[in-house]
Amino acid sequence: MRLSRYYAPTLKETPAEAEVVSHKLLLRAGMIRKLTAGIYTYLPLGLKALNNVARIVREEMDRAGALEILMPAVQPADLWKESGRWEFYGRELLRFVDRHEREFCLGPTHEEVVTDLVRHEIRSYRQLPINLYQIQTKFRDEIRPRFGLMRGREFVMKDAYSFDKDDAGADASYWAMYKAYIRIFERLGLKFRAVSADSGAIGGSFSHEFMVLAETGEDTIAYCDACDFGANVEKAEAVCPPPGDIAPCPPAETVATLGQHTVEEVAAFLEVTPDRIVKTLVYVADGKTVAALVRGDRELNEVKFKNLLDAKDLRLASPEEVTAATKAPVGFAGPVGLAGIPVYADRELSLAADWIVGANAADAHLRHVDLGRDAAILSFTDLRQVAPGDPCPKCGAPLSFAKGIEVGHVFKLGLKYSKSLNATFLDEAGKEQFMIMGCYGIGVSRIVAACIEQNNDASGIVFPPAIAPFEVALLNLNAKDAEASAKADELYDALTAAGIETLLDDREERPGSKFKDADLMGFPIQLTLGGKGLARGIVETKDRRTGEKGELPLDGFMDAFVAWREGVRQGWGLE
Amino acid sequence: MRLSRYYAPTLKETPAEAEVVSHKLLLRAGMIRKLTAGIYTYLPLGLKALNNVARIVREEMDRAGALEILMPAVQPADLWKESGRWEFYGRELLRFVDRHEREFCLGPTHEEVVTDLVRHEIRSYRQLPINLYQIQTKFRDEIRPRFGLMRGREFVMKDAYSFDKDDAGADASYWAMYKAYIRIFERLGLKFRAVSADSGAIGGSFSHEFMVLAETGEDTIAYCDACDFGANVEKAEAVCPPPGDIAPCPPAETVATLGQHTVEEVAAFLEVTPDRIVKTLVYVADGKTVAALVRGDRELNEVKFKNLLDAKDLRLASPEEVTAATKAPVGFAGPVGLAGIPVYADRELSLAADWIVGANAADAHLRHVDLGRDAAILSFTDLRQVAPGDPCPKCGAPLSFAKGIEVGHVFKLGLKYSKSLNATFLDEAGKEQFMIMGCYGIGVSRIVAACIEQNNDASGIVFPPAIAPFEVALLNLNAKDAEASAKADELYDALTAAGIETLLDDREERPGSKFKDADLMGFPIQLTLGGKGLARGIVETKDRRTGEKGELPLDGFMDAFVAWREGVRQGWGLE
Repeated sequence: MRLSRYYAPTLKETPAEAEVVSHKLLLRAGMIRKLTAGIYTYLPLGLKALNNVARIVREEMDRAGALEILMPAVQPADLWKESGRWEFYGRELLRFVDRHEREFCLGPTHEEVVTDLVRHEIRSYRQLPINLYQIQTKFRDEIRPRFGLMRGREFVMKDAYSFDKDDAGADASYWAMYKAYIRIFERLGLKFRAVSADSGAIGGSFSHEFMVLAETGEDTIAYCDACDFGANVEKAEAVCPPPGDIAPCPPAETVATLGQHTVEEVAAFLEVTPDRIVKTLVYVADGKTVAALVRGDRELNEVKFKNLLDAKDLRLASPEEVTAATKAPVGFAGPVGLAGIPVYADRELSLAADWIVGANAADAHLRHVDLGRDAAILSFTDLRQVAPGDPCPKCGAPLSFAKGIEVGHVFKLGLKYSKSLNATFLDEAGKEQFMIMGCYGIGVSRIVAACIEQNNDASGIVFPPAIAPFEVALLNLNAKDAEASAKADELYDALTAAGIETLLDDREERPGSKFKDADLMGFPIQLTLGGKGLARGIVETKDRRTGEKGELPLDGFMDAFVAWREGVRQGWGLE
Repeated sequence: MRLSRYYAPTLKETPAEAEVVSHKLLLRAGMIRKLTAGIYTYLPLGLKALNNVARIVREEMDRAGALEILMPAVQPADLWKESGRWEFYGRELLRFVDRHEREFCLGPTHEEVVTDLVRHEIRSYRQLPINLYQIQTKFRDEIRPRFGLMRGREFVMKDAYSFDKDDAGADASYWAMYKAYIRIFERLGLKFRAVSADSGAIGGSFSHEFMVLAETGEDTIAYCDACDFGANVEKAEAVCPPPGDIAPCPPAETVATLGQHTVEEVAAFLEVTPDRIVKTLVYVADGKTVAALVRGDRELNEVKFKNLLDAKDLRLASPEEVTAATKAPVGFAGPVGLAGIPVYADRELSLAADWIVGANAADAHLRHVDLGRDAAILSFTDLRQVAPGDPCPKCGAPLSFAKGIEVGHVFKLGLKYSKSLNATFLDEAGKEQFMIMGCYGIGVSRIVAACIEQNNDASGIVFPPAIAPFEVALLNLNAKDAEASAKADELYDALTAAGIETLLDDREERPGSKFKDADLMGFPIQLTLGGKGLARGIVETKDRRTGEKGELPLDGFMDAFVAWREGVRQGWGLE
């Protein structure tokens, strides 16, 4: 493509609307434009990047045996009512009526539609397994859309749905997708981790998230450098050493802690370390008051607590609710004598006795508390957040933390939708059985943003070769000079004929603008033709990722280029 | 692809929901499934056909210099209010509010969005011309969706929009698209005609429709076999001979025509031919009563009449309204003495005098009426429908009629949207000017249906090679036999390696089922391996279009196949 005939409007200033780097750079590099909050138009460069991601996703889905279909964006409410999600999904589901006052929604996901399709089509175990996928535009009415393509309202997803006749088959379908995802993110040239994930509201028995590593990520991942363990901190197990001998504990006694509310204040006041204190946290789960205990130097993991309670809604109690439940101001809650309130403790608290806890009275704590003896604890279980340095649950080495952006998700759904939508088949014995489902999503448009969050510098985007709209930017610095332009055209034709996507900057602009634009748009390879280099018979090269510059001879250019390009690709971890 | 691992569920029975042949066959061949009225899921075969059409459209748009972008499906109401279409568009525009009660619609077309994009981006004549296109899912809330993909609510379109600095440029952009469309439909292997079209509600100065010829088409095309003239009958000019001498006309007189309402009745009663009678048609145009006159043997063309009046809404008057306007029952309206009602006449009526007209009184007509003398005619102009055998407006040869399905449309929009949305640029003299626009649509999903309406027989679909989901169906009749299957696999691998999309029917089904399914799905080439042929070292061939059968040797198969396939493609008019 010739830039003079293309449409890639770069901006010098960063638009005020953009907060995160990918959003800023997608706007500045002329890849997207905002239509309205959370809704964007893809300009030619942005669409090429999007299509590059989609193509690799499609190839790997096909290779894994999934079959591509295309389901509608507009979905009838009836199916969502049948699955039970019409009420449950909340206001992110955009609902409307058609001209005949029939209720519809704009699909944020397609479990209902695909299950409805399959229940009408599949009759026999002979037709299973089947895995159907699509790459399609979805809509989620985010309350506060932001961050450009990272959290838009209209976005492009790949969603796949597997149907199996038994659990072993469903597991095989799951792992086939897991492996396809690994290949996809490797081919895209992204640094990523597959992590165990909390399966959240969508339900299901197990799942993995695929995280693109980036400092700006909203998710925190705990991972191990010594083995392949990785998990969202929401899900990562906090390892608990085996129980040992517990020293006997003197009788509990009240101690005055006038004005000492926080763990740090109480620890300093009583001259102990925070790990001797029990933190009592009062929550409201589906309207009912409950309490959770963790060691003073630990944090409660709300996702683990919510899963333990099997609660739909979990929130910290307000100060008024804490006082009503404990008869004491905030800061003095404790597990002893908390009548009528279920109390759950992190399992670490079972390793010792002799704790300091709130006394459920103003300005007072209890010491020498043996939780087993003095309090009614419903269970000791894993409730705390892991922390950097905690032992890896798999190998015991210290865990590291990293920030990540979720770009893919695989779920084993089990029977959730096949039961509610009655998707059955006849098994080998002629008996009706529910299909076992899995669902597998990839945020295609989100990957374009996430790859920029991971790969950028002060000059602009640093696109991985597989995602870059063009692999090569060929800068003709003498666009007004016929001879130089003929040479540039010759190189452009040779690169294009070799199947290497090249953008020829043939504009009559200053060299400085051309370099700046090429850097901003982030093409992996820059080739510059002009000036003294041209006189010497060479093309200047630049590897956008490393910034390294070099020269290639015009004479025998393609051979030299292909060899040099190999090195650039290897630097990206590509074959 | 191996059919045993594919998902192409054929149906023996035609579902009751389907009325037209393409809808029936798309369902029976396992290409689409209905989700709800006018909204379909594309199964793997249907999606492949859709993508084949989209690919050719994209290649030709790119070749013509248009740049691909992707605009959102969800569009803010504000833009539609600015263009004036929010009120005007009617209930086919699906409207809704988001969670913040802001108004949106699901885009049935993108003039507003693209003009909004361009007005913010283009500042100078140096940036023009530009032509932006997308292939995208649209929604139109049809009151009665039907005919499957022919008139669905959710559908895939290619829409392009050109912006030019002057009229000559806009014309060049228009004709570049016109030529690209010709190439697209030729490459698709469809019999089609480009015809002058009424530009309808979308506005604009001139336009062409691209019609796929099919007996089941809803549109009627007038075309000339002697030259390249083609027009929608809505738009085709009725040629009127030059005026000659007109015989003087006796004074008008009333004649009793008791109970004679229709032209035929009056002609028989008065013993004249219908072409001596003037038909007076009373209409309501935007609430105002008007009358149109055509010769008794002609039909009024309502589109011409509506355009003449520049009316938004035109309908036949009800019997009550006719009586109120003419003081006579239906059947006796005439132009003489029609006080206060504007009367327009077809120009053919100016070629003669001495007409018979209704008397605006029950059971009475007037004869010896000279319209110029006896009636107040606002204008004599082209108002009648052309008929088969009428002279071609271009060369005078007799016109033929054909039925067609509109699959593409090119419009020169002019200033309609650039004025209402204030899309301007600075010209060479630094003066602000409105951009001149064109818009160019292709119904991508509709083409899949239209190609089936044109190409089918009692056994099923007859896909043109460019659209067929697979070019070749390879039927292995001995799927249980390892040796035969190895041979089939070998052929399959050779065809696939040559880039020929092949579906291998490796199911353990009866030969009859395999032949039936292959015919139904409509692959252009059937290759059959098995039985006695296999023993003789041959593959049986069938050209789906002609039904012609033949044999190719297994020894040296690919060379023989490639040569034979050329003939099949030439039969489709492909290079």
